[in-house]
Amino acid sequence: MNKKILIVGGVAGGAGTAARARRLDESAEIIMFERGSHVSFSNCSLPYHLSGIVKDCDDLVLMCPSKFAEQYNIDARVKSEVVKINREEKTIEVKKLDTGEIYTEAYDKLVLSPGANPIKPQSIKGVNNENVFTIRNVDDIDKLNKYVKNNNVENVAVIGAGYIGVEIAENFVHNDKQVALVEAMDQVMQPFDFDMAQIIQKELHDNGVNVVLSDPLTEVKADQVVLKSGKKIKAEAVVLAIGVSPETELAEAAGLKIGETGGIEVNHNYVTSDPDIYAVGDVIEVYSKIARSKTRLPLAGPAQRQARAAANHIYNIPNKNNGVIGTSVIRAFNYNAAATGLNEKQLKEADIAYDFVYIIPTDKVGLMPDANPLHFKLIYEVPTGKILGAQAVGKGNVDKRIDVMATAILMDATVEDLTESELAYAPLFSTPRNAVNQSTLVATNLINNRYRQVPVTKVRELVENDALIIDVREKDEYQAGHLINAVNIPLSELRERADEIPHDKPVYLHCRSGQRSYNAVLALQGRGFDNVINISGSFLGISFYEYFLDQTTDRNKIVTEYNFN
Amino acid sequence: MNKKILIVGGVAGGAGTAARARRLDESAEIIMFERGSHVSFSNCSLPYHLSGIVKDCDDLVLMCPSKFAEQYNIDARVKSEVVKINREEKTIEVKKLDTGEIYTEAYDKLVLSPGANPIKPQSIKGVNNENVFTIRNVDDIDKLNKYVKNNNVENVAVIGAGYIGVEIAENFVHNDKQVALVEAMDQVMQPFDFDMAQIIQKELHDNGVNVVLSDPLTEVKADQVVLKSGKKIKAEAVVLAIGVSPETELAEAAGLKIGETGGIEVNHNYVTSDPDIYAVGDVIEVYSKIARSKTRLPLAGPAQRQARAAANHIYNIPNKNNGVIGTSVIRAFNYNAAATGLNEKQLKEADIAYDFVYIIPTDKVGLMPDANPLHFKLIYEVPTGKILGAQAVGKGNVDKRIDVMATAILMDATVEDLTESELAYAPLFSTPRNAVNQSTLVATNLINNRYRQVPVTKVRELVENDALIIDVREKDEYQAGHLINAVNIPLSELRERADEIPHDKPVYLHCRSGQRSYNAVLALQGRGFDNVINISGSFLGISFYEYFLDQTTDRNKIVTEYNFN
Repeated sequence: MNKKILIVGGVAGGAGTAARARRLDESAEIIMFERGSHVSFSNCSLPYHLSGIVKDCDDLVLMCPSKFAEQYNIDARVKSEVVKINREEKTIEVKKLDTGEIYTEAYDKLVLSPGANPIKPQSIKGVNNENVFTIRNVDDIDKLNKYVKNNNVENVAVIGAGYIGVEIAENFVHNDKQVALVEAMDQVMQPFDFDMAQIIQKELHDNGVNVVLSDPLTEVKADQVVLKSGKKIKAEAVVLAIGVSPETELAEAAGLKIGETGGIEVNHNYVTSDPDIYAVGDVIEVYSKIARSKTRLPLAGPAQRQARAAANHIYNIPNKNNGVIGTSVIRAFNYNAAATGLNEKQLKEADIAYDFVYIIPTDKVGLMPDANPLHFKLIYEVPTGKILGAQAVGKGNVDKRIDVMATAILMDATVEDLTESELAYAPLFSTPRNAVNQSTLVATNLINNRYRQVPVTKVRELVENDALIIDVREKDEYQAGHLINAVNIPLSELRERADEIPHDKPVYLHCRSGQRSYNAVLALQGRGFDNVINISGSFLGISFYEYFLDQTTDRNKIVTEYNFN
Repeated sequence: MNKKILIVGGVAGGAGTAARARRLDESAEIIMFERGSHVSFSNCSLPYHLSGIVKDCDDLVLMCPSKFAEQYNIDARVKSEVVKINREEKTIEVKKLDTGEIYTEAYDKLVLSPGANPIKPQSIKGVNNENVFTIRNVDDIDKLNKYVKNNNVENVAVIGAGYIGVEIAENFVHNDKQVALVEAMDQVMQPFDFDMAQIIQKELHDNGVNVVLSDPLTEVKADQVVLKSGKKIKAEAVVLAIGVSPETELAEAAGLKIGETGGIEVNHNYVTSDPDIYAVGDVIEVYSKIARSKTRLPLAGPAQRQARAAANHIYNIPNKNNGVIGTSVIRAFNYNAAATGLNEKQLKEADIAYDFVYIIPTDKVGLMPDANPLHFKLIYEVPTGKILGAQAVGKGNVDKRIDVMATAILMDATVEDLTESELAYAPLFSTPRNAVNQSTLVATNLINNRYRQVPVTKVRELVENDALIIDVREKDEYQAGHLINAVNIPLSELRERADEIPHDKPVYLHCRSGQRSYNAVLALQGRGFDNVINISGSFLGISFYEYFLDQTTDRNKIVTEYNFN
């Protein structure tokens, strides 16, 4: 007898499951129910409608129901809300949103892929006003875009500085809006650590985005938002992008097990607590390969893999399931930022012992056009050297370094393993010793106690405590901008002037990007200095780390002039 | 007592060994001898002087001898040729090229990094003419550039279509020269297979390079070159870029063991047959991790890793040595091409059983600006699924896919492993199911006999033999250009028109890029057809595969119009 497969939700996870099931079984009856007006649209491209990069919002729709019918023999029903699951009878109840009519469909296997809802806290005053928007689908972005146009909105407040918030902010700037990006936490882009986030914040700030941190939204008015601090920001339109909450109501009502993280609990093959019901996509909780705990990861790539796996299991095809790593990338104006694995905050939470390396190589050979500094942070387990995460920020091709690290994590690689990696090099693409080689070599040195380092995050404290900091750049570089109380002994004079350096206290060294200071540390150690410490990230890292807060707060500057190149 | 380390050769391998040795030992005496005028220049950037991307050829020099002295306390001696090694005495004889004076230096450890010489076959008539150039160093490129300028050269023949030849050809085109690229083999860029090379050839051809294949140079005259076929090509200047030969004379004369490949034989730690003499860089032979045999790999990245390892071993620091994989990348006008591991030709030679996948996904979400087809070939071991190699060609960021595959090879990954890879996705950077996921999923299907495929290289034969080829694209796509005898049954009509398809002979299916035909193959299989075969690469692949030869030979066209998008 032909299998009957019903699927709740018609975007990434749902459409993926349906297509895979059809490929595995030409005779199955497959029906996909979508509450919205469209199946299979590009969620991730939604923000690009606001700048006109995607001109027509209909272009966001990848496959219409008729194509699903023609190409896959899949019955895709839009404006159809699944309102109830009758597990005993193995049926669902579907409400036609146009007419209100409710009908019943029976299933052999049911797949839940309802996704996640943008959070809209009712504690915020005015949150239900007509000028407050959340973005989940094509209708939402169309509505926002039209509202802004029709009401001549000039000032927009985007609440929440995650991926969607930053993308919406940038696209509004490209559309000549005044944009405030408001974040309750002390940094933008939570997948990045505080140090890396500073670079992104600087870029947003440099491009005219009013980045407001550590200040949650409390009230929306017709022409302004009010924050917890009392600060008021002009805004005729407000976009809430403070996260999503898995849409588990249907599953909960059916008595399916919900995990601790709030997502539907699934097994290795994405089967829920009912053996005939699967769940995939943003609604489920997944297993973190690195943290070894349950988590949620609302991303398109994993959703597609889960969809395939669920369909496979319906047809008894075994699946691999490595747990999730979590890899993502964003463009913020002229900078790209990508991350994989866990960051420092997450590793502390998971109680995993780690150390990290922050290097700033050039992304291409310096002679080539568009060669730029690549800020690269590699996090590894101590003492094993196993790679736990990486973050990269720069104007160039940062995602290729992160993709390598994501693959390394998948394969349980250690920093020693990657010192031998052979990545594509030509002057227009990379350097002979690229960020992957270099960061893993530095990590290997650190693991073997060849030298010590201190991160850029500690430099302000060092300066304030009058630590001995030696800047080993050449005089002209020092004069162009330096740490206020650093002593300048260029590497080229270090050996002959080593006598000037005291043996009885810690000596902190930095140069521009860490290369020369690394040589200087080893030279001094070789001359009997036993308390020499490299400042990882060096002056370039310090400049990026200090700049944004120097511009947006009234604290004391610790550098005379910044250096960003 | 302080160690005395002598190093022969001052570019990648030599300079790298010297710097690492200094970092490991502040008290060592380190002397580096370079026959040329410069140490530590960017070899790989040399061609970019010809177009003016690198305006001043002095910029190609990364470190001058005085910087080596100041920053590393390394004595770098240019115009100093090491003419003899006295292994018994542990001394070398050095000739000052300015004065002809010869002196002796003693060593504790000697490191050989003399590099490799461009091949200049004396069998070619006129090869020693003043208008014939080879490119090895800054002086060479300066000389060529000045010759072309001073003699108003308008036509250049570049002999050899490898990395250097293609880069030189392109840079000359950017400098408004008429360029012929002459290759003795039947394709450009040997690291790529014939199918992938067609795409690069097309791009060179489209940009005005006269690509001449299968026709070796036999004679150089003042204003033309003569090829074996008798063909004459106008050329006032000729650049030979037909490969390099390791400079082993010094080592041979000293009785060091030379390997079968013609490079100096070294062990795990780059020690030669003399325990006090190391060799690194283009002069040595290395071990291929995949082929499990000796080979030569004259690349900058491996040279740097060998340099580090040799210095480590001098100081008793253990090294990893995985053998080499071989990864490279080139830009040819608007296309980028990258490769890693072994290609089909090399695997046949090494007698390793393999199969491969050729897919053409879009490199970014199609809605985004600059989204382009990415030609991706993945080669894996049969039956293990172990990844053996990959090649990628396209306008976008092809190297990031190859870097992932290089990492996968390093970690002995299988295609099944990589189906679970989580790479960075956002619409501007990639697609949710990227080339890595997709190619490894296809490979996993093939390994499990879920369907069969035939490569684009076999399509001409199928057409000529009147095989039944069904084009499952929509009618308008078919009408815009198709295989001359393909039958058009759009996927959207396939199920209702399945009766038109015979059961008694093989049915070959294609669409634009392989996505729809894959679904069509499975649909037909599900309906009882048991001899259905997908054409991997589909019409897009066929177009690229056929175009260049259609333009440059007078053979019959098998497509009515090409499709490149």
